[in-house]
Amino acid sequence: MLSVSEAQSLVLAKARALSAVPAPISHELLGQVLAEDVVSDIDMPPFDKSLMDGFAVRSADLPEGKATLAVNEEVTAGLTPKLPLMPGQATKIMTGAPLPAGADAVVMIERTRPGTNGRVEIDDKPPRPGQNVMSRGREMRKGEVVLSAGTVLRPQEFGVLATVGRTTMTVVPRPRVAILCTGDEIVDAQEKPESSQIRNGNGPMLQAQVTRAGGIPRYLGIARDRAEELRTRIKEGLQSDLLVLSGGVSAGKLDLVPGVLQELGVQVHFHKVEMKPGKPVFFGTWDQTLVFGLPGNPVSALVCFELFVRPAIRRLAGHARSGPFFVEASLTENFAYKTDRPTYYPAWLAWEEKGYHARPVPWFGSPDLRALTRANAFIFIAAGEHRLPSGQLVSVMKTEDES
Amino acid sequence: MLSVSEAQSLVLAKARALSAVPAPISHELLGQVLAEDVVSDIDMPPFDKSLMDGFAVRSADLPEGKATLAVNEEVTAGLTPKLPLMPGQATKIMTGAPLPAGADAVVMIERTRPGTNGRVEIDDKPPRPGQNVMSRGREMRKGEVVLSAGTVLRPQEFGVLATVGRTTMTVVPRPRVAILCTGDEIVDAQEKPESSQIRNGNGPMLQAQVTRAGGIPRYLGIARDRAEELRTRIKEGLQSDLLVLSGGVSAGKLDLVPGVLQELGVQVHFHKVEMKPGKPVFFGTWDQTLVFGLPGNPVSALVCFELFVRPAIRRLAGHARSGPFFVEASLTENFAYKTDRPTYYPAWLAWEEKGYHARPVPWFGSPDLRALTRANAFIFIAAGEHRLPSGQLVSVMKTEDES
Repeated sequence: MLSVSEAQSLVLAKARALSAVPAPISHELLGQVLAEDVVSDIDMPPFDKSLMDGFAVRSADLPEGKATLAVNEEVTAGLTPKLPLMPGQATKIMTGAPLPAGADAVVMIERTRPGTNGRVEIDDKPPRPGQNVMSRGREMRKGEVVLSAGTVLRPQEFGVLATVGRTTMTVVPRPRVAILCTGDEIVDAQEKPESSQIRNGNGPMLQAQVTRAGGIPRYLGIARDRAEELRTRIKEGLQSDLLVLSGGVSAGKLDLVPGVLQELGVQVHFHKVEMKPGKPVFFGTWDQTLVFGLPGNPVSALVCFELFVRPAIRRLAGHARSGPFFVEASLTENFAYKTDRPTYYPAWLAWEEKGYHARPVPWFGSPDLRALTRANAFIFIAAGEHRLPSGQLVSVMKTEDES
Repeated sequence: MLSVSEAQSLVLAKARALSAVPAPISHELLGQVLAEDVVSDIDMPPFDKSLMDGFAVRSADLPEGKATLAVNEEVTAGLTPKLPLMPGQATKIMTGAPLPAGADAVVMIERTRPGTNGRVEIDDKPPRPGQNVMSRGREMRKGEVVLSAGTVLRPQEFGVLATVGRTTMTVVPRPRVAILCTGDEIVDAQEKPESSQIRNGNGPMLQAQVTRAGGIPRYLGIARDRAEELRTRIKEGLQSDLLVLSGGVSAGKLDLVPGVLQELGVQVHFHKVEMKPGKPVFFGTWDQTLVFGLPGNPVSALVCFELFVRPAIRRLAGHARSGPFFVEASLTENFAYKTDRPTYYPAWLAWEEKGYHARPVPWFGSPDLRALTRANAFIFIAAGEHRLPSGQLVSVMKTEDES
C-alpha cells in the first residue's frame, strides 16, 4: 500500500499554482501570494531623514560633543529645509523630517537646552557622522525589486506595497473548493436524525478546514448513495479548482464514489494509503480539477484533509511550502499504543518555555470527533507496539497555530 | 518609565470581551469564541455502531475465533437491523451501521469468506466483546455539555456543533477597529509624494494587522497635523470598539494627538513605554472604546500593535489567551547589539527538526519596514551591550504562524 509521503508526492505533482489575477491592495489579500516582482518607484527614505526630534548639526562643529550653535530654522516632517546648514549653525528638526544640506548628524533633543538669542546649547558625546540619520535610499532604491513573485502577503508587505505606490498587483487567487458529503445515514444539521441516522458534521467542518487552508469553500450538500444522484452532484463539483467528497470511498456495498468518479472520467492516482485513521482516501484528477474522496468518519476526514487536501490548496494558492508542518515535542505522560499502520493520534501541543510538549487526548477512534475538541495536533506513531515514556520526543503534526 | 509588561497589564485590565451576539453556523466564524455552553441533544453514536465493514457476531459463538455462521440479513449505514442476532448467526454490516440486538462484536470482512447456503466462514482470533464496535453514547451523551463558553471555533468544533444540531449559537463578535493615520508628511498610496513626503504604508499595514488579530478594520484615512481636523476624525473613530492612530504621539512640535485625545475626554493610561522601537506609544479609554496612539515609523507601529493592540483585540474577541506569544530559539549566527532600552529586533524564526532557530535580519531602524519583509518574528534583547554567540538561546516573539 502507498505510504503517506508517496501519496503526498502524487498530490503535489498534480497541484500547480492557479493563474494570477489582478487585485487592488486590501487586507482581504492577507496570506495570499504575490504573482509578480514589485519594483520601487522611489528611494526610501527619499531624503536623508532624521530619526529623532532634536537638532541637525555638522559633526565637525562638535569635536568634544559640546557647543552653542545658532538655530537657523525649524523643520517638521512634511516640510523641506529652506536654509543650508553653515558652520556654527544647527537646524531644529523633528522625527521624519529631511536634513538640511550640510548637516550630517542629529543630536537628540534630550541632550540640548535652549540658549540665549535663539541659540541651542548641546552637551552630548561627540556625534558620529550619520548619527540619528537614515540616509537616502537606505531602505530601498528606485528601480530595485522590493518584493518578489511568490512572496506571501502579510502586514509588512502591504506597508511596502503602499510605500512604493502599488495599489493594484497580481496575486494567485484563493482556490475554489467544492464540498460534497455522501451517505444514506447522514442528515443536515437542522434535521432531527432518525434512529439509524446521524447529522452531517463533515460539511461545516470541511468548510472551515478549506477556509483555514486559504481556499474558498462551496458546500454542495448531501448526496444519497445512488449513482445517478452522485453523478449529477459530482459533475457540479468538478467545475471548481478542487472537489472534496466525504464518505462512500471504502469497500462497503454502497461505497459508490470511486466508481462514479471513474465513470465521469476522473483519473485515479491513488485509492488507499497506509495510515490510520483514513486508509480508504482517494485522489484523482479531472482536467485541472483535483478530486479527493475522504472517508466519512469525521476524524479520518479531518486528518486526510490536513495530510493531502490542505497541501494541495496551498500549492494551488501559490505557496512554496505546502506543509503539513511537524515539530518535535516531549510527551507529558507515558503512552502505550499498538497499531498496525502509521497513526496520527490526537494530542494537545503546547509550548512551555524550553520546548514543545504533547499530551495525547482520550480518543475512541475515527468517529470520535469530540476528542478533537481537546486536541490541536496529531502525534505521529509508526506501526508497531509502543510503550513511550513521559519525556519521550515524538513527531507532531500541527494543524493550527498553537497560540 | 513603564515596562512593556506593566503597560500590557494596564491594557488587559481595560479590555473586556464584547457582548455576545447570535450567529448561524458558518466557516466565517472560524477563530471566533463561543459565548455559551452547548449541550448535546443526542447520544453519539446514537446506537452501538460498527467501526468496520464485516460481520456482526456474538463473541460467545467464536471461542476459538473460527466458525461458520448463518447470515440473517445485511445492514448498511442509514438502515436499522430488522432481525435480532440469534446464536449461530451473523449479520453482514457496513461501517457506520447499527449493530443488531444480540451482537457484541464485529469481525472485519478481510477475516471472512463466503460459505455455502448464505453462510459465512470466519477465521480470526477470538473476538473480544466490543471489538470494532463504538458503543452508544461513547463520544457524547444526551444532555452533556460538549462545548463550553470560551471555546475557540475551529473545524472540529463546527463538526460537533452540527452533530448536536446547533445551527445557531451565540459568539463573541469580532471587534470593530478604526484606523486613523496622521501626519503632514504622508500621502495616500495612489499619490506621487512631493520631495518632503512619503506614502502612507501604515494604513494598509494596520488594516492587515487588525484582520490577522481577528478584528474588522475600518480605515479612516489620513488626518493632517491640525487640531480641528484631528478632533473630527478621532470623534468618528471613537464610535468603534477600538481606535488605532499612527503618528503624532512623540514629543515633536506637531505631535498633537495626545492633546486632542485628552480634550475629547479620552482617559490616559500610559504615554511612553520603556522599549525600542516604539517608546512614545499611547493608550487611553473613552467610555468602552480603547484608544491606541502608535508612533508613525512603520516598524514602531507594527511592533506596538503586536505588543499592545493585538492582545487587546483578542481579549475583546473573548480569547482567554491574549498573547503575544514567545518561544525560545537558538541564534543561527553571532549577534552583537547595544541598546539603551529593551528591544524587539526583527528576525527570521524557523523550526529545524530539533528546535527553533532565529536569524536576526539586517535592519536600519524604525523607518525600515522593508527589513520586516525578511522577518517573521522579533528577538527580545534586554537593555545593555550584548555579544551573543551563535547557538545562544534567545526569547523570540512570534507574530505569525511560522509555517
